[in-house]
Order: sequence, then C-alpha cells, then structure tokens
Amino acid sequence: MNAPQARTGLQLRSLIKSDGQLEITLVERPVPVPGDDEVVLRVEASPINPSDLGMLFGAADLATVSVGGTPQRPVVTASVPERSMRGMAGRVGQPMPVGNEGAGTVVAAGASAAAQALLGRTVAAMGGGMYAQYRCVKAEQCLALPPGTAAVDGASCFVNPLTALGMVETMRREGHTALVHTAAASNLGQMLNRICLADGVKLVNIVRKPEQVALLRGQGAQHVVSSPSPAFMEELTEALVATGATIAFDAIGGGRLASQILTCMEAALGRTATEYSRYGSSVHKQVYQYGNLDTSPTEIVRNVGMAWGVGGWLLMPFLARIGPAAAQALRERVANELKTTFASHYARQVSLEEMLRADEIAVYARRATGEKYLVVPNRGEAA
Amino acid sequence: MNAPQARTGLQLRSLIKSDGQLEITLVERPVPVPGDDEVVLRVEASPINPSDLGMLFGAADLATVSVGGTPQRPVVTASVPERSMRGMAGRVGQPMPVGNEGAGTVVAAGASAAAQALLGRTVAAMGGGMYAQYRCVKAEQCLALPPGTAAVDGASCFVNPLTALGMVETMRREGHTALVHTAAASNLGQMLNRICLADGVKLVNIVRKPEQVALLRGQGAQHVVSSPSPAFMEELTEALVATGATIAFDAIGGGRLASQILTCMEAALGRTATEYSRYGSSVHKQVYQYGNLDTSPTEIVRNVGMAWGVGGWLLMPFLARIGPAAAQALRERVANELKTTFASHYARQVSLEEMLRADEIAVYARRATGEKYLVVPNRGEAA
Repeated sequence: MNAPQARTGLQLRSLIKSDGQLEITLVERPVPVPGDDEVVLRVEASPINPSDLGMLFGAADLATVSVGGTPQRPVVTASVPERSMRGMAGRVGQPMPVGNEGAGTVVAAGASAAAQALLGRTVAAMGGGMYAQYRCVKAEQCLALPPGTAAVDGASCFVNPLTALGMVETMRREGHTALVHTAAASNLGQMLNRICLADGVKLVNIVRKPEQVALLRGQGAQHVVSSPSPAFMEELTEALVATGATIAFDAIGGGRLASQILTCMEAALGRTATEYSRYGSSVHKQVYQYGNLDTSPTEIVRNVGMAWGVGGWLLMPFLARIGPAAAQALRERVANELKTTFASHYARQVSLEEMLRADEIAVYARRATGEKYLVVPNRGEAA
Repeated sequence: MNAPQARTGLQLRSLIKSDGQLEITLVERPVPVPGDDEVVLRVEASPINPSDLGMLFGAADLATVSVGGTPQRPVVTASVPERSMRGMAGRVGQPMPVGNEGAGTVVAAGASAAAQALLGRTVAAMGGGMYAQYRCVKAEQCLALPPGTAAVDGASCFVNPLTALGMVETMRREGHTALVHTAAASNLGQMLNRICLADGVKLVNIVRKPEQVALLRGQGAQHVVSSPSPAFMEELTEALVATGATIAFDAIGGGRLASQILTCMEAALGRTATEYSRYGSSVHKQVYQYGNLDTSPTEIVRNVGMAWGVGGWLLMPFLARIGPAAAQALRERVANELKTTFASHYARQVSLEEMLRADEIAVYARRATGEKYLVVPNRGEAA
C-alpha cells in the first residue's frame, strides 16, 4: 500500500494575535490529498535553522515564553513588545505553518508522471510548513535523494547548502576572487569551507571563540581569525592581503563587524596602492548580510572610501536571479555530495511536542554554533 | 597676443606633515608650457565644493585652524587628530594641489588641432588643482562653453551637474522609477529638482529647515519633507507611496537618516503588499551615499527585510561605468542648459588669498546650504 495509513497528522502553527500575544500550537489536520502534480511527504526530519526562528517566534520577547496545554498538545505563549508589532502587521491573526525544509518519504502521489515517479522515494523539499507530520508539495519542489540516503541526511539539503554555494556563485558573478565569512564555524560555515577547499577559492573565516579557530583549522581552513582577539584588525587585514578577498557574507548583522571588515579590506588594498586618492581605493568592497544573529543596528564607520556597499542577501531572490538552469545545477551538486561537502550535524533530535518544551526552546532559540536541532515529526509513530 | 603675459602664477598647496600638522600655502610657480595635446587655462572661477574640502583640510580639526604668514602669502595651519592620521597615510609629506573644477580662458595651447581649437576660448575643465592662477590640462578634458558664456557661469560645469544627472541615470539603469534626495535644497539639489521636473521624474526632497521647504516648493518641487518635523516618518512614507521611489541619494552619510529612508520605503511597499513574508518586501531598496555632511557612523536599523543596500556613490567611477559616449551626452546637456537647469549660485567670491582667511574658512568649511563660495584666482590681476 502506498497511501498513508494515518488519517490525520500534527501540524505546528504560529499565531500572533492583535493583542501582541504569540501562540504556538500543534493542530491535528487531515492528511492532504495530493493534486495531479503533487506528492504527500511523511516528514521524517526537518532542521531548525535561524531563518525558521523568525517565523516561529516572530518578534516575541523570548524572556516571556511560557508553556501550557498538555505534554501531548503543548501551547507556547509569549509577548511581542508593542514597538515591534508594526513589523508583524502582515501576519497578525493568521496561523502560520513553520519549517522551511525537510526530508521524508513520499506516501501518496498525484496522477502526473513526475509525481508518480517519486512514490515511495525518500525526498527532500523546501517550501515551508515542514514542522508537520505530513506535508503536500509540488513534485517539482522535491529533490529525490540518492537511493539508500536516510531522511536525516537529506533534511538540510536546501537552505545551508544552497546558501553556501550561492555565496561562492555571487562572489564569482560580482567579480571578486576570494571571500570572507562570519560566524564561520556554523554548519553553514563548515560547508562553505569544504566548498572553497574543493573549488580552490580562498576563504577568510571569522569566528568568535578560540575553539572555533581550532575546529576550522582541523578541517583544513587556512585563514581563521577570531574577532575577540586584541590583534583582530591586524590579523584580518593580513588575511585579506593574503587572499585578496573584497566580498564578505555576514551572519551577525548588527554592531560594527561589517564596518571592521570594510575597514580592513580598504587597509589591505591600501598596502598595494601606488597613488593617493582622497576617495580611497576604487576597488568595490561589499558586505552582504544574510543573517541577523545580532539584531542591534549595523554601524558603518565611513573610513573606507566611496567604493563600498552593505546590503541584505537572501537565498530565494538569488536563485530567481540566476535562473532555473543554474539553480538546478547547484541542487544537483548538493544531492551528489550530500554525505561529504554538504553533511550537517545536529546536537539533538526532538519531536514536535518536545520542540515546544521551554527547556528546549531556551537552547535552540540561542542559535549557538554547534547547537543545531533536528525536528523528527514522526518519531515513534507507525511508519 | 594669446600667450600669457605673466611668467608665474599662484597655486594653492595643501600639505599634511608626518607630525600631524596641516599646512596650506600659496606658492609661486612658472606658468606651465603645454604639451602637444594640452592647453593652459587662466583659471577665472572655481567653486568650493564639499568634495574639495576633503582634499583642502584632510582630517584636520578645524577648531585648531590658525592663519599666519602675510596677507599676500597667508599660511593656514591646523592639527590632524592622531587617530585620523592612519587615513591620511597616502598623502603625508606630499603637497597636494586642490580644486576639482573651474573655468577660464585658454591662454596657450599645444600643437595638436584639438588644443589649437581651444585657444582664446572660455572653457570649463575638471581635473584637480584649479585653485591656481594657471592650470595645464589635456584638451580633451575641456568643455568649450557656448560663445558669450562667462567663466563664472561655467565654473561648476562638472561636479554638481554630472552628479545630479548621474543620479537620475543610475535610477534608470538600476530599474527604479522615482528617487529621494537629502540635503535637497543645496545647489545640487535645486539642479536635481530642475532635471526631474524637465524629465518628468518624481522626486522626494528631504531638507532640514522649514525655509528650505518653501524654497524648493517655490521652484516647483511637489514632494518636500523636513526631517526635524515630528511627522517626518509619516510624511516621508506618504511621499514614497505617492512617488514609488525605491532609491535615494544621500549627502548626509552619518546617523540614522539612511535607515529612516529604508524603513519608510519598506513601509510604503507594505501598504500595497498582499501577502506576508517574514523577509519583508522583495523589492530592492537602495540608498547611495555620495556625501559626508555628517561624519558620524551610519546606523542601519535592519527592520526593512532583506532586499536593501547602502553604499558609496562617486561621480568618476559612475562615468567610467557608463562609458565615454554616454558620459559625453551628459556633458553636452550641461553645456546646453548651463544658464537654466545647471545654473549655480554663490554666496561670495574670494581670491586665493582671501580663501585662506580664518573668517572665510569658518563660513565655507561649514558647507551650509546657500553659502557656496567661488574662488576667483585672477581677480585684480591683468587679464
């Protein structure tokens, strides 16, 4: 039998009410019936990425989290500060599904050939709402994993791998030859390091702790600098001279790190300059912020000449920009190198119910390097 | 006679010494002998643009300005704070000529046809070192002014007019349809307003004083908002809804104004959004900083989604980017509309000696709207 045995499945919903209350619940929903070009995925593994936390908690103050309900049907509540409600306007009153990506088994398929071809396969998919036991997706959104691949190994096929590949691709398309990455010991950072080693691209890794320097060096990274080091600016400048990196991808966002990177890039360029220009180097220096680990304002000290830029970088618009053929080539590389270049590591696996426990939230909401969680929505259920 | 009657001419030099002392002097130099493709300009008018002040004073603290020497040969000194000397490294010990642009009479020309064609003409030129009585420039750097045009009217042919045209051109090339300008009552801002009115481009002017609102409205500007107004954010958002502007050119640089513009752009886009995205609007919002009126850090509050950018914008790289034919088309428009669209107004004309008086420095170094100076290096000299 290919049809799902269950009639219903749990689905996580995040709701922000007009009174500023956040409410996260598990609701029971009928297993969807796929359309012609759709398949139903029994979700077996879905990571909690930083990008998911924004949808999960919105602008709620996590110090106000409280958990009620029952262990089987927990209800998480928290308060959104009034000043942040303006930014939430677009989602107030709408229960939002959460979970950008995941992997699992195709348990039902529509009539189309593309959908039928996936029946019984283990596939990865991106498309939101993966914190659920069943999720209906378009067949074309699925990446069939190589036979023998466990769902756990394919859970993080999209967000981190395509983001890391997208950074290298953006570097090339915008005319740079080496790059800088911050929070570089993350799962994503380790992937980027492996890509750069494989592709012969010079990478400057910026981390925040000495043990992260050791971790990346142990994985073959050549340039790793630690931002709390008193010699940080000098060490970064030297790494920039050695690599020629003039583009950075920054997961931190707030504070002065982006500015320090620009300053050191300009200093590195200045070491080889032959003529004074009061406008600084004419080489464009770019920092793209793809994350928001520090939500305080970004402060740019403008001592870097005029050829600089800071801006947001997001995976989906990038994929749209490069077009379907180029995007598909990136996806295929991910599938082929899933257990090597694009391997992810998780500190802990939790069920949907466990995910809503206060002690677990306190850990994964910290978004600390080495503490990534994997949600396993069907653990303990009959397959 | 076409050859200059003078044998020597005064030239302004700005020197920063390794001990952190700034020294501005007037030196007497032989009138240059032009090469084949060069002409010698008797400089009759050269504006003091904000972009000139950076070269003139470097990072010197203007509170420490003192003037010695004689009335005929004044010597300005000031101190560069130690923390700023790093940024000055490229120019320490080198006396720098100053003055980006100017206009005057061609009093000697090299053998080439292009140079000879300019002999006796009133021309404008850009190329630095215009705070001088005589300046040798390539014939191709000159813009011959329409017959009957006074040097005073052609002094500001390049920096402001091409910058204003460059803003509109950048807006078009980057796919925006309307624009925002700050410090919008400046000479440059008034020009931009005239260009936008002529070209049917919607413009949101941001100013800092009520009388500047009146001034721009009096010149036909439709959208003028004053940043000290308590309703500034709301007024700006409404102007952005009305115009659809998603690109801004900012002369201020420091503080939160760039961030406020991005916030209001995002709010304006949100008013017409139909679906919630936690990444905000997918429409790219851009602020280019082309000036530095506030040298404090730029603070970006990242409440604007991910599709945003802030960066430096500079005229010369822009002209290089669009290529010689497009740049020439802009120059020709300037020459044709010099007394209308591109007319400049000056609060005061000063000789080279007067330019180095402490009381004059105190006024023009303020870079206040309506207080632009014109340097007339040959006033009182025999023509």
